[in-house]
Amino acid sequence: MAATKAYGAQSATSPIAPLTIERRNPKPHDVQIEILYCGICHSDLHTARNEWHGTIYPVVPGHEIVGRVMAVGNHVKKFKVGDLAGVGCLVDSCRECDNCKEGLEQYCTGGATFTYNSADKESGGLTYGGYSKSIVTHEDFVLRVSDKLLLAGVAPLLCAGITTYSPLRHWKVGKGTRVGVLGLGGLGHMGVKLAVAMGAEVTMLSHSPSKEQDAKRLGAHKFILTSNEEQVKSVHHYFDFILDTVSANHDYNFYLGLLRTNGVMVCVGVPDAPAQVPAGHLIFGRKSIAGSLIGGIPETQEMLDFCAEHNIVSDIELINIKDINEAYERMLKGDVRYRFVIDMATL
Amino acid sequence: MAATKAYGAQSATSPIAPLTIERRNPKPHDVQIEILYCGICHSDLHTARNEWHGTIYPVVPGHEIVGRVMAVGNHVKKFKVGDLAGVGCLVDSCRECDNCKEGLEQYCTGGATFTYNSADKESGGLTYGGYSKSIVTHEDFVLRVSDKLLLAGVAPLLCAGITTYSPLRHWKVGKGTRVGVLGLGGLGHMGVKLAVAMGAEVTMLSHSPSKEQDAKRLGAHKFILTSNEEQVKSVHHYFDFILDTVSANHDYNFYLGLLRTNGVMVCVGVPDAPAQVPAGHLIFGRKSIAGSLIGGIPETQEMLDFCAEHNIVSDIELINIKDINEAYERMLKGDVRYRFVIDMATL
Repeated sequence: MAATKAYGAQSATSPIAPLTIERRNPKPHDVQIEILYCGICHSDLHTARNEWHGTIYPVVPGHEIVGRVMAVGNHVKKFKVGDLAGVGCLVDSCRECDNCKEGLEQYCTGGATFTYNSADKESGGLTYGGYSKSIVTHEDFVLRVSDKLLLAGVAPLLCAGITTYSPLRHWKVGKGTRVGVLGLGGLGHMGVKLAVAMGAEVTMLSHSPSKEQDAKRLGAHKFILTSNEEQVKSVHHYFDFILDTVSANHDYNFYLGLLRTNGVMVCVGVPDAPAQVPAGHLIFGRKSIAGSLIGGIPETQEMLDFCAEHNIVSDIELINIKDINEAYERMLKGDVRYRFVIDMATL
Repeated sequence: MAATKAYGAQSATSPIAPLTIERRNPKPHDVQIEILYCGICHSDLHTARNEWHGTIYPVVPGHEIVGRVMAVGNHVKKFKVGDLAGVGCLVDSCRECDNCKEGLEQYCTGGATFTYNSADKESGGLTYGGYSKSIVTHEDFVLRVSDKLLLAGVAPLLCAGITTYSPLRHWKVGKGTRVGVLGLGGLGHMGVKLAVAMGAEVTMLSHSPSKEQDAKRLGAHKFILTSNEEQVKSVHHYFDFILDTVSANHDYNFYLGLLRTNGVMVCVGVPDAPAQVPAGHLIFGRKSIAGSLIGGIPETQEMLDFCAEHNIVSDIELINIKDINEAYERMLKGDVRYRFVIDMATL
């Protein structure tokens, strides 16, 4: 085991602060990665503050990890020292259930191992995330990262990117699809970029007029201000697919009304309040409301390759790790365009 | 115009009673059908009693119509005098919208003409349904009916049959699909028969132990008593597809928990209360909740042909039209296995 510098929370009310964790020495199939950048996801904050309950302290958040391979176990074939590499939300899974066999490790029914605050089968303790100098991960859960892209902007692809890419692919969004993206934040801005790159006609749906310019800059073909009745009327029964990235409470029925026949609204945000949907709003028009969780390892690799091919990264604000608590506060206010990424050289 | 004997309601509180309506004389594309049998659907009762509002009186319900062609307009090619024929929930549509062009007349955005209580483009008045001696309908909305099946049992296929057939087909239910059918009534019993005939493994989900024997007789491979924890546990994360035919209020989340990854729950019943679904119940497992409305004309014909091929009709109780008000009361109590059909010879 090796003592490793990290940042984490000691309790639900303590700030994110320096601490030291133990990382295992690389086993034959392990890849040891020097972490260069780590994105800050809302899940990090929810977990650090125990807002989803179940946090065990100390917790080291961070699951948008990119870096450079420092060492590999002697059976590792996919990576060599010096390669760029990434780790997302998953570091292991049961590998035996139907979902794992299909590469849908995110839906592992045997119990996936998440990158932080998850039981670690190797150490017997807990997993620690990317707010740290390095990480040791089984090669099967390490992603190849292109050197063509701005590396800091790649980090958020590992969660925000795959969370939006996966439903767009699963529901076959492409040329001829009318996509609405609801919410322009860390997830929404990736949803716009990815759906545009897939060839869809993309409309940003937002209640904030200030987002229009940015939405267009990100590639959105249209912008609909959801408080403007005339604009909303123009997209009534319009969309094939709505990607709902909002985690504040909102009225799902308003957006179901914007779907055309066979339209699907996919939720990737988790509001406190349940969706309240009269069956009739689904029946007239054969509409669906669905959910989607990150993506499996093969699809995450596919997404990274797609982003390299289409020159897509996240729009980020790079921060010094000592400013992380301020970044959390700004994230809560939506004051980031569109993802904070920690420069791990500052640790 | 021809005076035609019928049964209908004069107000929300009056019983279904004899009245006389006017039917148009057949135009060049019209088919005039002597109605032999008409099924009784819950919609008939809701409309007769104005429970969905918008009923204009007098109303003549009935949209599960089978009979024999009495006359055809001189441009009619699909039918000749003496043929069996059926009319379901739709008698016309805009014919110009994308949905109509795809044969999805049930989702017509230009305004479909329903078989009763709908603005009638031909007469300028209202449409009148199947509780009558005859009906005159444009050939495009008349279905061919096989003479191989018990005709009275065919009538409910025109609504209960297509309402369950359409979602089973749309979501590609077949060999290897694990289907749960929720609720064993007019819709549910057709859902079981059709899904079994499509090759699926079918489980009846019911809170009533008395339904087990019937479910098995209808072809269900399994029966799960939803109040029995052990039984329910055995189908946790089990189904690919749940057909929810229940129109009483119920907890959708209970059934979402029975879906496996990528599972879809389709509602065809309309409870008073909205579905209340936390986004997380959809996200973990990429599950969907959807709705489906009857079917279009091409699919309704396909369903009738499928039923003829597989020897499928509805289980019915044939009644004299003078007993219709009693039938309504019994239907409200669920005291029918599984559809009342009016013998129109009694009119």
